[in-house]
Amino acid sequence: MDKRKNISMAVIKRLPKYYRYLSDLLKNDVDRISSKELGEKIGFTASQIRQDLNCFGDFGQQGYGYNVKELYNQISAILGLEKEYKSIIIGAGNIGQAIANYNNFHNLGIDVSAIFDTNPKVVGIKIRDTEIMDIDKLGEFVSQNNIDLAVICVPSINAQKVCDEVVRLGIKAIWNFAPVDLITEADVVVENVHLSESLLTLIYLANEKKRNELR
Amino acid sequence: MDKRKNISMAVIKRLPKYYRYLSDLLKNDVDRISSKELGEKIGFTASQIRQDLNCFGDFGQQGYGYNVKELYNQISAILGLEKEYKSIIIGAGNIGQAIANYNNFHNLGIDVSAIFDTNPKVVGIKIRDTEIMDIDKLGEFVSQNNIDLAVICVPSINAQKVCDEVVRLGIKAIWNFAPVDLITEADVVVENVHLSESLLTLIYLANEKKRNELR
Repeated sequence: MDKRKNISMAVIKRLPKYYRYLSDLLKNDVDRISSKELGEKIGFTASQIRQDLNCFGDFGQQGYGYNVKELYNQISAILGLEKEYKSIIIGAGNIGQAIANYNNFHNLGIDVSAIFDTNPKVVGIKIRDTEIMDIDKLGEFVSQNNIDLAVICVPSINAQKVCDEVVRLGIKAIWNFAPVDLITEADVVVENVHLSESLLTLIYLANEKKRNELR
Repeated sequence: MDKRKNISMAVIKRLPKYYRYLSDLLKNDVDRISSKELGEKIGFTASQIRQDLNCFGDFGQQGYGYNVKELYNQISAILGLEKEYKSIIIGAGNIGQAIANYNNFHNLGIDVSAIFDTNPKVVGIKIRDTEIMDIDKLGEFVSQNNIDLAVICVPSINAQKVCDEVVRLGIKAIWNFAPVDLITEADVVVENVHLSESLLTLIYLANEKKRNELR
């Protein structure tokens, strides 16, 4: 029985949030929770939560609520976190180094197998036991290791070139921090973290709020 | 004449993208562009572009297209980039340091006035001429400087406390990197960069694509 077809992007985007809240509940030794209580925490309605989780299977029991540990495990499995992933980071500048050092990255079971850069000044330096390698070694490394995802942290001008190269090498998942919209084949998934756009949205909204208050 | 009321969040979220594409066009010395050409670049339809920009005023001329420099300046002004902003970064870990070093942050006219941390090992260190200060100095510093926005890069467990404190000090715009949903008064704007959620979405979608291919 596959209930997972045609799930809206909106639901998918909420899954990591469920995962985060459930993992906090687990840490606080909460055994079970009703959709109403969970909704109040997350800021969704109980009915939205029931609807969302119903997209993936039958969770919870009426009058009892959700078993936190079970729901956590199930969402974990839905997200694909039952296995480990191998990643490479391309670009060992500020963002690349921060990601390589980022605890949550490791906590989610994502291994940073290698970091690549063109700058001879950083090549050879280790970040958490992972050595920064020369970008010339990229092809050889990826073909010898089973890499699941590439994190692109290079300047915008090089991002598409790097993207084309990792896709050519068979990597199908790209986490992109360069402020460009990458063009890829349909079988590749790109998730962008466009920091400047997030910041510009914040500035716009803050100004907008001020304008509204002055009205 | 104020055309700016009731603009949907979807349009607002697209503005930074327009800004980015127009700034690239400017760099490439493009003088004018039709809504069709701009749409092809960005991946929107020409009609969507005309509609979006119409929310903010009358841009472009039929048959002539948009004057790139003019449109860039106007969107820049709409986003509020005609003035400079002063920010503080709280938490000088990996992410905080990366943001402090982030070029685009500076390019957008956002000054990092101070960085705060609790760790005596990093207090006193300079990042791009800005010294990391002890968190105890936060109140004094903010009350003596006109700070527009706070970047929260502390561990989740401390994020709400830090948020409450900066809001109490009068800061109305928060760029939050901690993996929590901050609770604030209605007159405060929070923009989140939830890296783990972005990464989990990527992993889910990559697995989903694989499942679909196997079907």
